[in-house]
Amino acid sequence: MPAEKRVEKITDMNLDFPQWYTDVVRKADLADYAETGGCIIVRPYGYGVWELIVSHLDAKFKETGHENMYMPLLIPESLLEKEKDHIEGFAPEVAWVTHAGSEKLTERFYIRPTSEPLFSAHFAKTIQSWRDLPRLYNQWCTVMRWEKTTRPFLRGREFMWQEGHTAHATNEESREEALRILDIYANFCEEVLCIPVIKGQKTEREKFAGAMNTYTFETQMHDGKALQSGTTHDFGDKFARVFNIQYTDKNNQLQYAFQSSWGVSSRLIGAIIMVHGDNNGLVLPPGVAPTQIMIVPVAAHKPGVTEKAEELRNKLCRNLRVKVDSTDHAPGWKFAECEMKGIPLRLEIGPKDIEAGQCVLVRRDTGEKITAPLNGVEGIAADLLEDIRKNLFAHAKERLTAQIYVAQSVAECKKILDETPGFIKAMWCGADACEVRVKEEAIATSRCIPFVQERVGDKCFVCGGTAEKMVVWGRAY
Amino acid sequence: MPAEKRVEKITDMNLDFPQWYTDVVRKADLADYAETGGCIIVRPYGYGVWELIVSHLDAKFKETGHENMYMPLLIPESLLEKEKDHIEGFAPEVAWVTHAGSEKLTERFYIRPTSEPLFSAHFAKTIQSWRDLPRLYNQWCTVMRWEKTTRPFLRGREFMWQEGHTAHATNEESREEALRILDIYANFCEEVLCIPVIKGQKTEREKFAGAMNTYTFETQMHDGKALQSGTTHDFGDKFARVFNIQYTDKNNQLQYAFQSSWGVSSRLIGAIIMVHGDNNGLVLPPGVAPTQIMIVPVAAHKPGVTEKAEELRNKLCRNLRVKVDSTDHAPGWKFAECEMKGIPLRLEIGPKDIEAGQCVLVRRDTGEKITAPLNGVEGIAADLLEDIRKNLFAHAKERLTAQIYVAQSVAECKKILDETPGFIKAMWCGADACEVRVKEEAIATSRCIPFVQERVGDKCFVCGGTAEKMVVWGRAY
Repeated sequence: MPAEKRVEKITDMNLDFPQWYTDVVRKADLADYAETGGCIIVRPYGYGVWELIVSHLDAKFKETGHENMYMPLLIPESLLEKEKDHIEGFAPEVAWVTHAGSEKLTERFYIRPTSEPLFSAHFAKTIQSWRDLPRLYNQWCTVMRWEKTTRPFLRGREFMWQEGHTAHATNEESREEALRILDIYANFCEEVLCIPVIKGQKTEREKFAGAMNTYTFETQMHDGKALQSGTTHDFGDKFARVFNIQYTDKNNQLQYAFQSSWGVSSRLIGAIIMVHGDNNGLVLPPGVAPTQIMIVPVAAHKPGVTEKAEELRNKLCRNLRVKVDSTDHAPGWKFAECEMKGIPLRLEIGPKDIEAGQCVLVRRDTGEKITAPLNGVEGIAADLLEDIRKNLFAHAKERLTAQIYVAQSVAECKKILDETPGFIKAMWCGADACEVRVKEEAIATSRCIPFVQERVGDKCFVCGGTAEKMVVWGRAY
Repeated sequence: MPAEKRVEKITDMNLDFPQWYTDVVRKADLADYAETGGCIIVRPYGYGVWELIVSHLDAKFKETGHENMYMPLLIPESLLEKEKDHIEGFAPEVAWVTHAGSEKLTERFYIRPTSEPLFSAHFAKTIQSWRDLPRLYNQWCTVMRWEKTTRPFLRGREFMWQEGHTAHATNEESREEALRILDIYANFCEEVLCIPVIKGQKTEREKFAGAMNTYTFETQMHDGKALQSGTTHDFGDKFARVFNIQYTDKNNQLQYAFQSSWGVSSRLIGAIIMVHGDNNGLVLPPGVAPTQIMIVPVAAHKPGVTEKAEELRNKLCRNLRVKVDSTDHAPGWKFAECEMKGIPLRLEIGPKDIEAGQCVLVRRDTGEKITAPLNGVEGIAADLLEDIRKNLFAHAKERLTAQIYVAQSVAECKKILDETPGFIKAMWCGADACEVRVKEEAIATSRCIPFVQERVGDKCFVCGGTAEKMVVWGRAY
């Protein structure tokens, strides 16, 4: 019997949330630190979650007419300099390639932090007529941003993501595209990841470098902090004018094209951990669990147990992702391991169960034990997984609803955020100066101007001026 | 009606094969040149082929117990320097990251040309006991090698690939792994890509930097040149000794682990083009054709034609990848487009066909036209696609068999290769000096020592010494 190291406890999330997070990342085998500073190794279990995220979203992108393609990793310095706002946003944190082999390059290249310049240059070259529009492109890749402080999945020098880049005939279409994708993201987040979202628009200050409008879906972590989980941008014709993306319309007139871009990243894995996890470790939503059911044979040395476990696996794996833990660890160790790894359902089967024609299913979310007849266990397991999905969402939604507070002044905003985890709803006049004051005095940023507005006052909570917009504020990862 | 530019001819492959190749890459919309010198933009159609390659191989890797994961793009300089042979092979062509933002980094990083150092460092950290073995890892990513001369898909500064990295308890197992994967590659190449291969071992001179043994599958292009399409490496314990990858065996003794690595890349797309393509453009094997059947409505303005085309698409797309070309181009333009893009089957449907309850299927490989009843067209189309698959392979196999010649001297080898496209079979004594002479005098490299040997003489064709091994030689991409 090997040392039962798995049963060692992780840090209590209520005592030290950041340390609890790191413990889960490491002990659930999601990721490990790499020899490359600020970067992580995404281990097979974490990558398995990512593969499921990719497969869900990729199907949605394709259903809505998007095509995958691949742009180079390196971008020539000359391209970065084209769009002024874009360079200001990204130049401070790009990694520069200056040499190849032992030679100094004549032009420097930067590793993509995002690929607007390359897509724009390609659109300029390949779009001639209205027949060439819309262009609906996406790429799955990694990008690099040289962050000073990093945390696995939340902020890293390199991360996995997808970046959609589209070109359209009109600004109406590019805006519709940005909103359509926001809905795809938000629905995926709520229905598959079981994470409730607040959809809205970013303020001028918080929008993407170079965008006309940025749309966002904001999520709240267990500790009340916000995680910006994905954004979509409407560029208008800003990049098109700089990169000269023009097409001939049906009346044979030259027009600028209108663009959008959008992305979600492996940050979503961080959100899953911090929304659903508990003091026993990770809790995975069934839709992105690499293993949905782990079968644990009890008294596996007794005749027939291993065979029955295999038989159950073969029956269940027709529609579900199922594994048998046939290692020689003790059942207690295996149970703890299932919990640490957030496997939605554990199926225990031993000699007595076989005799009684039943097995025991244990839910990761509630810990509830359900005795199920072997005959018909597939249906019961599938129903339980669906129930887990709904329960995880309901739980998170309840917390999000409870943890949003109205503030009528910056001082009140700060006081609430200092004392209570959560978001703040407050009316805002729209002035940048007021937003800056909230940032400086309450140490909170505007998360978004929600699409679903609510009137929580009629004066700006900063300056007291007339305010039409309710904004959600919070402290963010 | 738009300008019918598609019908413009591509270069004749018999007059200028390299130009024909470039024409096909560009005009079949597989790839485009990028703003980043030496790199390509993989366009949606080319990426669609790659996605199918990935999905076939990924399933095979997973079936054989491999797990995907992700390692950082950047590797610290200190890691490169660990394994002497490895650094000698790769240092001259790596891209160096020296700055981030406006700051010079204290340690330089290189962009992975392959990831042995990172996997080895990770194995050293995470493998402790025999229970941790084997480790069967793979990652899908891009890598960078700063090539001087580049050609789309064949040789580029950045290319898409997978790299498998495994660790085992014994050298027997690491060798078996390298040979198992070689079989997966070779079977995929023959059965899905319809490209016949020669499997064998690389000579000392041609093996991978740092490997003990390199296995390869070599393919012959239409012009008789060789394309090394993928390799697998048995490292023995070479990296394990440098990176200190040790495990405790069942007798509680410390042992070094044994490793393998293996990769295929987007070069396979180059192989598909150059093995199957013809003077009308690309010819795609059905298994990797993003569109297997293009339905072209004829006289689409006539009542019922568009509806019937859609109806056929809905019927056929249950098991096949099918599109309807509903653009307003003329049918002739659409036919040429289908040919250029190598779509295996074209289905023509017009008012007269509908009246007769039939449609016309046109094979891309032979140009043959088959009239098929609408009732039951699914089965006929599926059978035709399978027949196309077999026919493409048979054709390529016939050419490969015909284009291998025996040479008894270096002069003869050179003469044959100068005058005739193809490979050379010749006996070799095993001396590196002889291999160098072939390279210098016949401008040919050893492709492999085939597993299936054939005695084509008994003396080394270079020095006349005793020779036990038959080697395949050729000029390569």
